[in-house]
Amino acid sequence: MSKIRAGIIGATGYAGAEIIKLLAFHPEVEIVFVGSRSYADQKLASIFGNLYEIVDLTCIDDDTERMKEEIYRLADQVDVIFTATPQGACASFVTKELLEKVKVIDLSADFRLKDVAVYEHWYKIEHKAPELIENAVYGLVEVNREKIPQARLLANPGCYTTCSILTAYPLVKEGLIDPDTLIVDALSGVSGAGRGGKVANLYCEVNESAKAYGVATHRHTPEIEEQLGYACGREITVTFTPHLAPMNRGILVTAYASLVRKSDGTLPSGEELRSVYSRYYDKERFIRVLPDGVCPETRFVEGSNYLDVNCKVDPRTGRVIMMGALDNLMKGAASQAVQNMNLMFGLPEETGISMAPVLP
Amino acid sequence: MSKIRAGIIGATGYAGAEIIKLLAFHPEVEIVFVGSRSYADQKLASIFGNLYEIVDLTCIDDDTERMKEEIYRLADQVDVIFTATPQGACASFVTKELLEKVKVIDLSADFRLKDVAVYEHWYKIEHKAPELIENAVYGLVEVNREKIPQARLLANPGCYTTCSILTAYPLVKEGLIDPDTLIVDALSGVSGAGRGGKVANLYCEVNESAKAYGVATHRHTPEIEEQLGYACGREITVTFTPHLAPMNRGILVTAYASLVRKSDGTLPSGEELRSVYSRYYDKERFIRVLPDGVCPETRFVEGSNYLDVNCKVDPRTGRVIMMGALDNLMKGAASQAVQNMNLMFGLPEETGISMAPVLP
Amino acid sequence: MSKIRAGIIGATGYAGAEIIKLLAFHPEVEIVFVGSRSYADQKLASIFGNLYEIVDLTCIDDDTERMKEEIYRLADQVDVIFTATPQGACASFVTKELLEKVKVIDLSADFRLKDVAVYEHWYKIEHKAPELIENAVYGLVEVNREKIPQARLLANPGCYTTCSILTAYPLVKEGLIDPDTLIVDALSGVSGAGRGGKVANLYCEVNESAKAYGVATHRHTPEIEEQLGYACGREITVTFTPHLAPMNRGILVTAYASLVRKSDGTLPSGEELRSVYSRYYDKERFIRVLPDGVCPETRFVEGSNYLDVNCKVDPRTGRVIMMGALDNLMKGAASQAVQNMNLMFGLPEETGISMAPVLP
Amino acid sequence: MSKIRAGIIGATGYAGAEIIKLLAFHPEVEIVFVGSRSYADQKLASIFGNLYEIVDLTCIDDDTERMKEEIYRLADQVDVIFTATPQGACASFVTKELLEKVKVIDLSADFRLKDVAVYEHWYKIEHKAPELIENAVYGLVEVNREKIPQARLLANPGCYTTCSILTAYPLVKEGLIDPDTLIVDALSGVSGAGRGGKVANLYCEVNESAKAYGVATHRHTPEIEEQLGYACGREITVTFTPHLAPMNRGILVTAYASLVRKSDGTLPSGEELRSVYSRYYDKERFIRVLPDGVCPETRFVEGSNYLDVNCKVDPRTGRVIMMGALDNLMKGAASQAVQNMNLMFGLPEETGISMAPVLP
Repeated sequence: MSKIRAGIIGATGYAGAEIIKLLAFHPEVEIVFVGSRSYADQKLASIFGNLYEIVDLTCIDDDTERMKEEIYRLADQVDVIFTATPQGACASFVTKELLEKVKVIDLSADFRLKDVAVYEHWYKIEHKAPELIENAVYGLVEVNREKIPQARLLANPGCYTTCSILTAYPLVKEGLIDPDTLIVDALSGVSGAGRGGKVANLYCEVNESAKAYGVATHRHTPEIEEQLGYACGREITVTFTPHLAPMNRGILVTAYASLVRKSDGTLPSGEELRSVYSRYYDKERFIRVLPDGVCPETRFVEGSNYLDVNCKVDPRTGRVIMMGALDNLMKGAASQAVQNMNLMFGLPEETGISMAPVLP
Repeated sequence: MSKIRAGIIGATGYAGAEIIKLLAFHPEVEIVFVGSRSYADQKLASIFGNLYEIVDLTCIDDDTERMKEEIYRLADQVDVIFTATPQGACASFVTKELLEKVKVIDLSADFRLKDVAVYEHWYKIEHKAPELIENAVYGLVEVNREKIPQARLLANPGCYTTCSILTAYPLVKEGLIDPDTLIVDALSGVSGAGRGGKVANLYCEVNESAKAYGVATHRHTPEIEEQLGYACGREITVTFTPHLAPMNRGILVTAYASLVRKSDGTLPSGEELRSVYSRYYDKERFIRVLPDGVCPETRFVEGSNYLDVNCKVDPRTGRVIMMGALDNLMKGAASQAVQNMNLMFGLPEETGISMAPVLP
Repeated sequence: MSKIRAGIIGATGYAGAEIIKLLAFHPEVEIVFVGSRSYADQKLASIFGNLYEIVDLTCIDDDTERMKEEIYRLADQVDVIFTATPQGACASFVTKELLEKVKVIDLSADFRLKDVAVYEHWYKIEHKAPELIENAVYGLVEVNREKIPQARLLANPGCYTTCSILTAYPLVKEGLIDPDTLIVDALSGVSGAGRGGKVANLYCEVNESAKAYGVATHRHTPEIEEQLGYACGREITVTFTPHLAPMNRGILVTAYASLVRKSDGTLPSGEELRSVYSRYYDKERFIRVLPDGVCPETRFVEGSNYLDVNCKVDPRTGRVIMMGALDNLMKGAASQAVQNMNLMFGLPEETGISMAPVLP
Repeated sequence: MSKIRAGIIGATGYAGAEIIKLLAFHPEVEIVFVGSRSYADQKLASIFGNLYEIVDLTCIDDDTERMKEEIYRLADQVDVIFTATPQGACASFVTKELLEKVKVIDLSADFRLKDVAVYEHWYKIEHKAPELIENAVYGLVEVNREKIPQARLLANPGCYTTCSILTAYPLVKEGLIDPDTLIVDALSGVSGAGRGGKVANLYCEVNESAKAYGVATHRHTPEIEEQLGYACGREITVTFTPHLAPMNRGILVTAYASLVRKSDGTLPSGEELRSVYSRYYDKERFIRVLPDGVCPETRFVEGSNYLDVNCKVDPRTGRVIMMGALDNLMKGAASQAVQNMNLMFGLPEETGISMAPVLP
């Protein structure tokens, strides 16, 4: 079989660069082009020195307006395009015709939400390709695996959402918690804030500090609600609070919900809950249900496609505390995108993304 | 007036060192002795190089067993003793007779909880001086200010608890939230884990990572429950989850609770809630109610006695998100101890602790 | 005596903010205005949240072009103006007439070098006020103390230079080392790179990494050469290499030079060299010669005006390794500026800047 | 060909853990045993959570005394033993008989220095197996490649030394610099300090600070001197100063030397020097000579076996500044050990260690 030819738009953000690194070592992929608006015509390795002598590619100009025409020519050269672009960009140039030529894996939020009104409400922008939403596949592999191979347009989930949904999913799906009580408290490393030259993300503004942000308004909220709503078969509303912590990578989710009492009036035990997690996830290559009493730590998943989960019952309050950790640039973005690509092209799911986490 | 003579036991932990630094610059205090078990007979400045040429003191041996006798002799030389010692140490040598000679400000948990059974349950140690608990004063200044001047034995609140209680206090006290729904999600810098040579606190074990710990079992939980229980006039149970974040200092609290609907069935507005915070805290020298929409950040309180608070209503879920930030070694330990000392000796509350936060 | 009225131009960089914080607590100073181009008409505390409820000032627009006229009106309102501005700004609006109205303390390099050609060569800009250079005083207090009280225009030394010069000064001045062999290897925390929104200074670009930069071309080189040249009475050339390290604050200098053999052909001993340091610096309030064998660490001076120094003889190579550490925003910028201001206005040198270093 | 069977002694330090991770993914290796004194009988994945569900091994007790007998039995089960142990341990149990059974790759300094007196002087311990030194091979691949395939006992170079030697090697070897003027200024991330529970390596003692240590006495000095001495054909003495910087990984070397003038009295140009680097290193898979003007940064080699080098001429002083960066746990320890193992077993040098650096 000849190699999958891939192009990456938005290659000089952190997620884009991570995709390139993964694809450069992927045994079944050849990178054909990489695009960047800010670094057009520059060697990729002059921006990401780690790729020096490893990736010898020069960025083409992927200005969104320019892409509206250019993308068809580019599509002829590749089998798949990854878009690691700001919200709205992908929707502005992807079309039905384009999808007949090439598969698209979009790392932005453009095709994650099925309700265009919800998208426009939370993202404050008009959706330019609402007709494509229905057939877009939400690429949360461990929940949606069967639908992914047929996808032409794949919506790669957000970093907070991947971690939040998968951390709560088994208990929501099994009706063991009351979804209306679900509160997701999460923290992220700084690479989640992007690679733009903003004062707010300078080293000295972020280092040695922690803060909540986007309180009650963060855009990943409806994505969590939609997917967990599917799991419990009705619309739900959750509280989601993201925090910024001074580290490069990592998402840590601590989620709270009231347990549903059993028919005998007792609370489910920790053992019962953990056995549900095991039932859902033990067969999963990239989700690790940790031993009883062990809390996920972001350092133990850094640089890998793993998600670590666990839970703890608090019998005093009748709540369960669910915990999850992943690397926002990997399982939360790039390696999950490659995991989806593998499925879309009939490859073993773990191809090119089976590396162990880096420590320390 | 002659200066207050002070002694510090447990001087070579992070909180002890911070007290020394504050007292060294306090205009009304003279440090008479500093104690350390690990560094007995060593110059303090050989351990804390920042104090070189500033504090010229040598540590006496403050081994707990030794203190049981020695403390009376030491008490004759000072007006106040600060104990920044492990749980159980202070209770093992403080006595009624000692308190007749000297005031004691205890930074451990020994005298924070009024119910000795609760203490022994959560701390897993026998309380050696239960008879002193009743008269010990809980030194949360902004809640307990009137009781502090009379204290002979002052229980200085914990770092997580100071932040958690003061963040939720006005809304609990005013009955605006349902205390049974209260969930406190908090994160701490690493200095909160102490200065012992443990592998778990090595730079490379902690850096670039975040984790929850003590889930559903952390010892600060009953302290929060007791104090907020006083505020609402009944026993309450809260969920408290601490996290470790890779930074030296800082506590950040994000607390969740369901709002109590008003008699007309509507939710209180953010404006109404913020006006309650203002009513409670605007007169407070060291609590800053931030402008609407501004989230507390630990960097903005670092190195100071300030607590920053704010709240945000989430009308979709009927919850309020309450936020607070302080420096765990300052308002969460040392500067709050000095604030208490000031009140106990009739000094203006802010004496020696009015410095601005350090940034960056 | 009425208070010194001060204005700060360039108040929203890191050095400017530090000056404001120091002056806000200085017992003899009143801040009259603060200027910022990027944040004109904004509350200072909305930018630097640490100053909320502490400093209630709104930034005036200090655009350089605008200042050329406006500065005279501003000068009427104050006794001293601090300029924490980019290279060239101060020289573009300071004039002889202005200096008759007000004293100026310039934190940029505009008036540090006596040879305008050297300035223009290293800084690649035309000097707009060469006629003022001669009477400008180089404000390295511990070397130049007698000249400072008369200064109308004070050139506050750079952060690298303050540390480099004072670390080597006693041995250069006493002829104990061969200045032609002097190599200064230094590292800086990231606040030295300024507060502009550049990709290169983003958290994720700087964190967990170290690099040299400006190798053989850094602008602080001629400043070190000029001042140490005065010390040894002739022109010298040094190698200076700055590095960036992932921390907020701090300059660490490690300097190397060949020792001059004594008349008997032996090398001076470490004890002899340390006694020279003591002779120069023991009377200095803000320079600490560390005990034998103790290396300076930036954490021990952070947040203070202290410089810590020490040296070590390497008899195998006939070299001495000289070491120094300071806080780049304090002794390397803001607190040294206030130290200079104190001398210029006849106040005790340590007024308002005697705080101990913060640890951890 | 059947797989190489490997055992690791000292598996629970940072270098040991890195070797395990590399070998676990090495296509030609099977790990047979891992040893640890502190964690005997514990699951490796309970210590290094990143290896959970990846490496399912339990630590055997590798106490040094116990090893003296046990090692022969272990040797029967494997083809190669890696010793990532404290100084002196390997020499205390490796013998001629052992080396007939098994190849040993020692990551300690025990067999790096050819002169036992030099070893005993710098390391302050008696060498227990001096008779094995002569036949031990110093595993600096890019310098010693031909000797490595025959090695039974391989001395894996130190982290500082690998970076220092390879950074200066081409210019020393070609006689372009005066080796007597060589000064190596280096900094290291904290993982280089090991995984022992020492107060000095706690997060809050190391974070936000930098310091020199081991000034004029660091044990890597004679190793640099010996190897560069071979390169220039005579004994040399260098000044080496290590520094600690607040980051997990990375060695950065900045080395200074006076250039040797050419026969026409001129200095060699930067271009000439860089062409020498290219001649030596362009064929090397794991050494990257960076483009002119680009300084090595540790982030660009993190997690990889790469060494990045460059140099810059300072015509003002007649010196060259040589720069190098590597990952201390990889090219400075574990991946270099695997690179050596590959050569010792006839595998392509890059097998299992060709991953790109992680960024950010």
